[in-house]
Amino acid sequence: MAEAISFLEPRADVLARRSAIVADLADLLAPECLIHEARELVPFETDAFVSYRRLPLAVALPRSTAEVAAVMKYCHRYGIPVVPRGAGTSLSGGAIPQEDAVVLGLSKMNRILDIDYANRTATVQAGVTNLHVSESVSADGFFYAPDPSSQLACTIGGNIGMNSGGAHCLKYGVTTNNLLGVKLVLTDGTVIDLGGKALDAAGYDLLGLVCGSEGQLGIVTEATVRLLAKPEGARPVLFGFDSSEEAGACVADVIAAGIVPVAIEFMDKPAIEICEAFAKAGYPLDVGALLIVEVEGSEAEMDDMLASIVAIAHTHKVKTVRECQSATEAALIWKGRKSAFGATGRIADYICMDGTVPLSQLSYVLQKTGEIVDGYGLRVANVFHAGDGNMHPLILFNANDPEEAAKAEAAGNDILRLCVDAGGCLTGEHGVGIEKRDLMRHQYADVDLAQMMSVRSAFDPGWILNPSKVFPLDGRNAA
Amino acid sequence: MAEAISFLEPRADVLARRSAIVADLADLLAPECLIHEARELVPFETDAFVSYRRLPLAVALPRSTAEVAAVMKYCHRYGIPVVPRGAGTSLSGGAIPQEDAVVLGLSKMNRILDIDYANRTATVQAGVTNLHVSESVSADGFFYAPDPSSQLACTIGGNIGMNSGGAHCLKYGVTTNNLLGVKLVLTDGTVIDLGGKALDAAGYDLLGLVCGSEGQLGIVTEATVRLLAKPEGARPVLFGFDSSEEAGACVADVIAAGIVPVAIEFMDKPAIEICEAFAKAGYPLDVGALLIVEVEGSEAEMDDMLASIVAIAHTHKVKTVRECQSATEAALIWKGRKSAFGATGRIADYICMDGTVPLSQLSYVLQKTGEIVDGYGLRVANVFHAGDGNMHPLILFNANDPEEAAKAEAAGNDILRLCVDAGGCLTGEHGVGIEKRDLMRHQYADVDLAQMMSVRSAFDPGWILNPSKVFPLDGRNAA
Repeated sequence: MAEAISFLEPRADVLARRSAIVADLADLLAPECLIHEARELVPFETDAFVSYRRLPLAVALPRSTAEVAAVMKYCHRYGIPVVPRGAGTSLSGGAIPQEDAVVLGLSKMNRILDIDYANRTATVQAGVTNLHVSESVSADGFFYAPDPSSQLACTIGGNIGMNSGGAHCLKYGVTTNNLLGVKLVLTDGTVIDLGGKALDAAGYDLLGLVCGSEGQLGIVTEATVRLLAKPEGARPVLFGFDSSEEAGACVADVIAAGIVPVAIEFMDKPAIEICEAFAKAGYPLDVGALLIVEVEGSEAEMDDMLASIVAIAHTHKVKTVRECQSATEAALIWKGRKSAFGATGRIADYICMDGTVPLSQLSYVLQKTGEIVDGYGLRVANVFHAGDGNMHPLILFNANDPEEAAKAEAAGNDILRLCVDAGGCLTGEHGVGIEKRDLMRHQYADVDLAQMMSVRSAFDPGWILNPSKVFPLDGRNAA
Repeated sequence: MAEAISFLEPRADVLARRSAIVADLADLLAPECLIHEARELVPFETDAFVSYRRLPLAVALPRSTAEVAAVMKYCHRYGIPVVPRGAGTSLSGGAIPQEDAVVLGLSKMNRILDIDYANRTATVQAGVTNLHVSESVSADGFFYAPDPSSQLACTIGGNIGMNSGGAHCLKYGVTTNNLLGVKLVLTDGTVIDLGGKALDAAGYDLLGLVCGSEGQLGIVTEATVRLLAKPEGARPVLFGFDSSEEAGACVADVIAAGIVPVAIEFMDKPAIEICEAFAKAGYPLDVGALLIVEVEGSEAEMDDMLASIVAIAHTHKVKTVRECQSATEAALIWKGRKSAFGATGRIADYICMDGTVPLSQLSYVLQKTGEIVDGYGLRVANVFHAGDGNMHPLILFNANDPEEAAKAEAAGNDILRLCVDAGGCLTGEHGVGIEKRDLMRHQYADVDLAQMMSVRSAFDPGWILNPSKVFPLDGRNAA
């Protein structure tokens, strides 16, 4: 195998080979499946992380597993880095070609291959959008559970790469809990199938390993996911509290009591104001923090669960409890929540953290997060999946002020360290990507990282798949 | 590193070293933690698979992670195979020392380290029994969900090794869905921590990979598992049908409708008779097949779900629907089911298969299973977790008749091939072990197995951990 290329500096030898690489890829792909003109490459130079830009060598947009395999076989042979890409919605830079790389986009593989109600599964190509899966089965009373806020755009392949979550994952689990099988193209173009429609699989759980591996172990081209029956009814309820600490303590008590609603979303005062101004969702503006709690089931079940939650909320001096009265109102409540990041982007630049903490630490970490951001003279809005302890502090800053940008990044790093030190971890659903690779040393001992890197090398010995992500750039096992 | 020893034939060079190995281990462990007298080694020569026996070189029973690490460091240095063992309840031979090996038993590591209701977790040593976890939190209204029939004896460490299931896993998932973290001693004695009390973990999901890896990637010494709140109520209901095919079709229709009870257990006529004779559970004897369906929640929820299931059962001409009337009756119904294997052992020798199938194939596979066993002139009893398609045909035979034993094994292999060909897999919860290692070629292509073996080598380059299990003995990557 040719020497792997994984330096971040532009490399003359690769750039010199660029036209030869494009010519070779043109032999493997139809003209509409290969992008190589500089102006057409621009949309692929970054993703939703946007802190870094770099033009790829070329963008391959294969239409089939066989074409993906052909591209991988070629790139593997010549040691050319490959960066897989779904819809480019990564918040951690997972789809950015940070080295001279071929971007392998799955957007043309967007067909639903099989809906199987008897086994409650859907088999889809990797480029199908998250929401499209649920929409395809909605009329028959089913849905696909993981629901990232970007679900209109983001793809199932990207969801698998990042083990994506969403508001409703408290009850239903994240991607790994709803994934039954994948077709995977290995680094050398070999195609393997992991899992399937039946429970479990003999041997090692490579499927679970691939889920969340950020495109470094192979390219997922097809996935079989679990379908769930839609509940009889669902009802989001707003709980307003005087302070973030009270709201956080209420969440911890609900979960500690063993109650598992479908969703418990948290907004602090700045987040409420930002989202309400954008979505007119009817959020109360006279509270210090808001929980959106969704219960589901029959009317009796919803009433039952709600009564238990209200009782706990009263021990935390809840100010407002408002059940939504109609489907329109429910849709508005969720629209406000799901557009939180976009709404924040209207008023300021922001970086979004993604740490998780044990629920018993929620109030403490919320309070310390405020102190950290205050210390840098910046503002923070908190809007996140509180039920599973997955925090999303949005640190607001002015990107045109390099000093503020540096402060925001420093505050973000402090917050993630705080999460880890509180017994949590760096990322709940956005992945490590470029953003958090250097912080991995704060979460893991060298021996932990070495073991992960050995596993990576067992799949991709030349480290050509998404090479600059996940692991700190220094001290790597290979490449 | 010394050359790894992984031949199944007794090796003079290892046996010659036996007394030296025992002497070395005696430096690492207290006298009561090391077994080396032949008569005391006998209980460790096999497990619940019992088709193969071999005395280990010695049995180490460490009391701490540090002692486990010391034993592993020593064995790694000298290339001595190590077979980890919980309670020895493996049905696939996972704990049998099929080579000249040191058995590393976790039975002395049986303490519960931490019960944390705020985060709904329990942290336990690997030798704690499955049932002990639930018993420790029962008075406070919590439980640990996976419930293998051997739960009185089997350990959490063994459950993790085999990714064990149980009757109630239809709703709550198997071990991997309820495992949050482990402390793992690697092959060279290095200790790493995977996962923890918070959601997810940055980087690769090594925790999921270790779960179900049959002790080949490291030795789990501690585990953090999820606790769940006990439901308000639970009610097993008996559904009797004319035939296995009708019962199987009913299960498929319930699941296809999106209904997920806690458990759907299946017994055919021979299984009903065997279990009723043993447990006097009150099973109807005038039906061809029986489903035990457990619903849970409030009275209203249970009534609701039950009504939907009864309606579906009527489309399959259900003969009997009997709700249990008391806690005593419920306990008897479960006692009958959970003692099925033991009760079968009273009347005949048996081997128990563990294939899974997509639910749409359940009736077909049940019918073909009967035909296969008939074809060998043997009898079969089916008692299994129907809701998740995890079949357990018990093939009855006389172990003193070598010809019958060979036929039983051949029938079992035919049945597992049938499951794989129907889109299922070799094992749902018992693991591959010795029993199914040669059948792995029927489930997987060489390239699939090669990828699993690469991952194994990334953890255990010398293949000293439980070396004779999981993979076919020929065509291995290493050792």
